Amino acid sequence: MKFNPLSEKARRTEPPPISWLMSARLANPDLISLAAGFVDQDSLPTVDAFALCRTILEDIPRGQAALQYGTTIGLPTLRESILDRLTGEAGLAPDRQGLTPGHVVVTTGSQSLLYLVTGVLVDPGDVVIIGDPSYFVYMGILASVGADVRGVPVDENGMRIDALEGVIDQLREEGKLDRLKLIYVVSYFQNPSGLSLSLERRQALVRLAREVRDESPVFVLEDGAYRELNYSGPAISPIKAFDRDNDLVAYAGTFCKSFSAGLKTGYGLLPDLLLEPVLNEKGNLDFGSPNFNQCILDEAIRSGLYDRHVEKVRQSYQSKLGLACDALDEHMPDGVQWVEPQGGLYIWLMLPPAVNTGAKGELFRRATDHGVLYVPGEYCFYPEPDREKPKNCIRLSYGSESPDNVREGIRRLGQAITETLS
Amino acid sequence: MKFNPLSEKARRTEPPPISWLMSARLANPDLISLAAGFVDQDSLPTVDAFALCRTILEDIPRGQAALQYGTTIGLPTLRESILDRLTGEAGLAPDRQGLTPGHVVVTTGSQSLLYLVTGVLVDPGDVVIIGDPSYFVYMGILASVGADVRGVPVDENGMRIDALEGVIDQLREEGKLDRLKLIYVVSYFQNPSGLSLSLERRQALVRLAREVRDESPVFVLEDGAYRELNYSGPAISPIKAFDRDNDLVAYAGTFCKSFSAGLKTGYGLLPDLLLEPVLNEKGNLDFGSPNFNQCILDEAIRSGLYDRHVEKVRQSYQSKLGLACDALDEHMPDGVQWVEPQGGLYIWLMLPPAVNTGAKGELFRRATDHGVLYVPGEYCFYPEPDREKPKNCIRLSYGSESPDNVREGIRRLGQAITETLS
Repeated sequence: MKFNPLSEKARRTEPPPISWLMSARLANPDLISLAAGFVDQDSLPTVDAFALCRTILEDIPRGQAALQYGTTIGLPTLRESILDRLTGEAGLAPDRQGLTPGHVVVTTGSQSLLYLVTGVLVDPGDVVIIGDPSYFVYMGILASVGADVRGVPVDENGMRIDALEGVIDQLREEGKLDRLKLIYVVSYFQNPSGLSLSLERRQALVRLAREVRDESPVFVLEDGAYRELNYSGPAISPIKAFDRDNDLVAYAGTFCKSFSAGLKTGYGLLPDLLLEPVLNEKGNLDFGSPNFNQCILDEAIRSGLYDRHVEKVRQSYQSKLGLACDALDEHMPDGVQWVEPQGGLYIWLMLPPAVNTGAKGELFRRATDHGVLYVPGEYCFYPEPDREKPKNCIRLSYGSESPDNVREGIRRLGQAITETLS
Repeated sequence: MKFNPLSEKARRTEPPPISWLMSARLANPDLISLAAGFVDQDSLPTVDAFALCRTILEDIPRGQAALQYGTTIGLPTLRESILDRLTGEAGLAPDRQGLTPGHVVVTTGSQSLLYLVTGVLVDPGDVVIIGDPSYFVYMGILASVGADVRGVPVDENGMRIDALEGVIDQLREEGKLDRLKLIYVVSYFQNPSGLSLSLERRQALVRLAREVRDESPVFVLEDGAYRELNYSGPAISPIKAFDRDNDLVAYAGTFCKSFSAGLKTGYGLLPDLLLEPVLNEKGNLDFGSPNFNQCILDEAIRSGLYDRHVEKVRQSYQSKLGLACDALDEHMPDGVQWVEPQGGLYIWLMLPPAVNTGAKGELFRRATDHGVLYVPGEYCFYPEPDREKPKNCIRLSYGSESPDNVREGIRRLGQAITETLS
């Protein structure tokens, strides 16, 4: 064709950096993948799902309603349950901070909520602050909308608030603070670091964001995808719990990790200001996520199957996390550092600065030669002009492989690192 | 908030015009709704769906795979079936015109495919040509992306090709032909007219679009949502069948109308040029539609349940269409015109030009007083500056109400029209 027909947005939209990782796995199924963020196959609730489908579909009128169109915002009873479960003990304040089920929007996975919220706020050149490192699929959205992305270092307590203040000062200096639209935080067991934002920092983040509201139309986008995968006691309150007037924080959650990724159902708790814009956009996108899936999850929660399943999943992942950390202790050479996570699906390794973990580096080649795949840390840092990002990190997933494979994969990786360092 | 935080796109995005229709229905459930495009509740396949869930979930490894993440493009076996079913007799040429299952993308309903294709092509100010009248939810997408929309009159053979040539000449004159990105056509039993684009016009449309390719990056977006709801013999070939090199026409299909809207699963057959951009965007949007739903539809097709169900649905709608037309004959006063459709879910009424069918007009008020809702035709015409659009039309849906209600609803509407005309 004589013309490039693509829209500006499509020209900015790249294939996900990990497509080739999936291809590498498919091309060599014997590889142990500590790269994929898939959930544990054996933990998937086939028996529960069948029982739920039976309950819904054997009741003919109920089954017909489930197989009919739903509404753009989603199933009312499911939205009530979602809000109930986030309220009280270590969650939203008992008064719900002004939130009603009408502020809960059900989406096709939480990814779709991230896409919608970002789309209704961010124009090309608008500023979005994310963690260094952060969830790389969200970075795809940011590149696509043409955001001016600024990274803030993450430590064992999550995003560093002092560094966030520094970035905000810098934006003020540049005269760009009025274009700061979003601060994106994976608040629980972050993808990729495995670490959570501490309670103190949650409060400080809300305080800081509220302070700059005079100078900036900023919102906080809290990604709570891993919230229920907590292995050491109750999860702390979400950032959303400190948004007393429901005007600052959009919270994204999902049933993909805790129950079934194949049902691809997530949700958002939206501030008043974002509710109508997101619903309008979703009206154009799909006018409602699949109703049948929402009915299954609704029944799962009401019947108690959901809670029992989450407990089972927690135990399974906790045990895998434990053996992964044992294997790291055993097989990683000196100079490799990590902080043991308390939940989620990921462990973040920091290698000596001289080691390049990138897809074209020596370590990655050695690792695949030994039969193990990992996600190079470089994909978890948004490239910024004039700012060097670490090249010596690795994201390990212990979610989808069997316990034996997790152990063996880490042993192989240890070998590859040892050889590379020597 | 001191600032308007919304993106340019969000500012252009409006609530769907029919939200208030849904509210009107909810507020008065005794109203007979000839407005909603819902499918027939009693036809929804609860027994089949349960059998399919059993087949998938009782086979544990298969069930686990169904409850796991799928891929962005969708389930391979389902994509093969989709392509197979569109190939041969009255469909794609036996050589498939270069199409492979790798050109089939599964989406969350066909709406989502329309959204993606439009999003990767259209920048604000780019031109999109649609029917006068046309599917109003698609118009929401067009307003949202800031398209310069031009309407082409539709008659009993679908979009008028002579008028399309006129619009293209006009664009050439305006120097805007190089910004013509899309011609959108609901090719089978169009929403809202109920009428199909004739075979001759399908061929002429492709010829014409190909001719202007030297001057314009135009694609044809063929919406085949109602293709399988054909009640009078086999459906004719899609427009896509005349796109010999798979470089011009994007075809959108869905299982929502033919099987279950609650599974919200649709698909696109994409030209090479659009495949990667759509997949990249979908990677950001949701990285794949729900896998479980795709597994259900895949098994439905392979087991033969799907074909048997479609046949049943056809018979049910055909009978309702017949009685709706009989009721129109009986109850509509002189001066009300319609063309009997051969499929789909809609009948389009043209009233005398003096009658305003709009939501604020006398007829609409009288109709709701009599207890019947319809979609005012004005919503089915995109507003264009300096061009008057008809205000005397009505879209009737006979899909979701019972046969008795369809008859009674049309009787009430006839009364309201008779009173308004007298």
